[in-house]
Amino acid sequence: MAVSAVESIAWTGDRLTVLDQRRVPDETVFLELRTIDGVIEAIASLAVRGANVLGSAGAFGYVLGVRAGLLPEDAAARVIAARPTAVNLRVAVQLAHAAQLRGEDPLDVALALLAEDRDACATIGQLGRQELAGASRLLTHCNTGALATTGRGTALGIVYAKAEAGEPVEVVATETRPLRQGARLTVWELQEAGIPVTLIVDAAAAAALTAGQVDAVVVGADRIAANGDTANKIGTLALAIAAKHAGIPFYVAATWNAIDPSTPDGAAIPIELRGAAEVIGTGDGAPAGDTAVWNPAFDVTPASLITGIVTERGVLHAPFGPAIAGLAR
Amino acid sequence: MAVSAVESIAWTGDRLTVLDQRRVPDETVFLELRTIDGVIEAIASLAVRGANVLGSAGAFGYVLGVRAGLLPEDAAARVIAARPTAVNLRVAVQLAHAAQLRGEDPLDVALALLAEDRDACATIGQLGRQELAGASRLLTHCNTGALATTGRGTALGIVYAKAEAGEPVEVVATETRPLRQGARLTVWELQEAGIPVTLIVDAAAAAALTAGQVDAVVVGADRIAANGDTANKIGTLALAIAAKHAGIPFYVAATWNAIDPSTPDGAAIPIELRGAAEVIGTGDGAPAGDTAVWNPAFDVTPASLITGIVTERGVLHAPFGPAIAGLAR
Repeated sequence: MAVSAVESIAWTGDRLTVLDQRRVPDETVFLELRTIDGVIEAIASLAVRGANVLGSAGAFGYVLGVRAGLLPEDAAARVIAARPTAVNLRVAVQLAHAAQLRGEDPLDVALALLAEDRDACATIGQLGRQELAGASRLLTHCNTGALATTGRGTALGIVYAKAEAGEPVEVVATETRPLRQGARLTVWELQEAGIPVTLIVDAAAAAALTAGQVDAVVVGADRIAANGDTANKIGTLALAIAAKHAGIPFYVAATWNAIDPSTPDGAAIPIELRGAAEVIGTGDGAPAGDTAVWNPAFDVTPASLITGIVTERGVLHAPFGPAIAGLAR
Repeated sequence: MAVSAVESIAWTGDRLTVLDQRRVPDETVFLELRTIDGVIEAIASLAVRGANVLGSAGAFGYVLGVRAGLLPEDAAARVIAARPTAVNLRVAVQLAHAAQLRGEDPLDVALALLAEDRDACATIGQLGRQELAGASRLLTHCNTGALATTGRGTALGIVYAKAEAGEPVEVVATETRPLRQGARLTVWELQEAGIPVTLIVDAAAAAALTAGQVDAVVVGADRIAANGDTANKIGTLALAIAAKHAGIPFYVAATWNAIDPSTPDGAAIPIELRGAAEVIGTGDGAPAGDTAVWNPAFDVTPASLITGIVTERGVLHAPFGPAIAGLAR
């Protein structure tokens, strides 16, 4: 079965075409970005999001700036400043800039980043499909698919690979409060691809897992420590604990660049605390604006709760420390 | 310290005064109900909610109908039909009607129900305060306080008792998607009472529990089976599993009428599946209206995950079957 995932980013000779993720799922609008300013605006306004997408988009933005005659140093600094804490963005722009300084075409770097990420997602999909043979009902969290990567995604990449291989697959998608990436993005992209998806509130996942409605949990990762401890969207830890309680395998799927050998374990991963407004909301029924809120963006799932980590270099199993070290280059 | 909890229902001689819970927390509006039709409208529209509140309100509605000259049978049938599946409502109205048929004043029944529920909540508060001595940081789910009962509540009754005894107490309140009773009701009533409360999304509870931010979890119950298995708001099971994982005590607090000896265990408790619209929502970012949704209103926490059940007859511990049987009358 041919499965068409949404394509969130593409280069077409003289312009970068990106899906405007701010308008999903209400409208499907592609932005055609022909200038560095257009790319910067798209990045800063979150029209373009997702760590891997950001890296490629930034490199293309740099290319557009240099082509328009900007000083290469200025072009690099301006693109990086669009999201100053995004590591992938900085690294990608610096790679393109280094090529420019060597007298090479930075476009080749940008195209290579795009292709590498696509290939990595495709490989993760295939390796995950083999690892999870027989698991057709997958529960996932947040959005890890074609909207979050330049390819078909990590956890959702496995879903797409199963569908394309003609294997039965259906997804239980958690809403993912407070920003609802599951409800807004994952549900939409799976519906677009024709893959069955059922939405649940985050709090219903334990009931779904213990009721035997799910064969495996598959999530993405924002950072994986050297021992396998994994930081991912808030709520991931609850899923891992409940999966263990229910005897259901719990998988992480991530491109290798999510693994940070310099972080020894989860305790060393800084957790971003976000503002209260995301949780409080607005309109009727919203609590008072000065309500105290604890709103961590991520939590850390200990390696002991993880069945396997699917990367483009292979599927890792416990003990994760040696497994990660063995595949590091 | 005097702690003033919101009073959600009161009888003042010729009328029933109820807090309009549809408008919390945006406005504090009390409805003065002088007719059976007014009470029925308030019940049917969810201005009045919460199992115990419904029972008392229904009995007062019956009284108003009979006082206005309605046939007692008709008054009873009309009030019960306002929420046909609410067991407490039916039982309370039938008790009032039976008194009327015996030539007694049904108002005495309504007032007794109100007083009994208030007393039960007060006793639960004191017993829970003793049981949870030393636990000052309590995580709770949904709304189990002055808005849900005629007294100060069950799980939140323990919080109020601690505060009134001058003991340190602070609450972590889960949002409780999809209807947000935690964010809308629990946060508001604790703020009104001057008790510190921090709001989190449901998915953040596991992180709060494993990070050592919570001394105990205390929740309410919609039905408790003869073996101690407890049905409560969706998301309760996830909290119980995470609390066990984190080594934190998990308590249920409920008036005795939540215990149903005719239900042998959790598997025998029917779980209400609600509509998709509650989860899908409306406005920008809402998934398609025909998105498949699994929206159970409750889940069942097995007795094996429960540290204790606080009732007005005493605090029950495992094995819960004999403990419940021992206090049954």
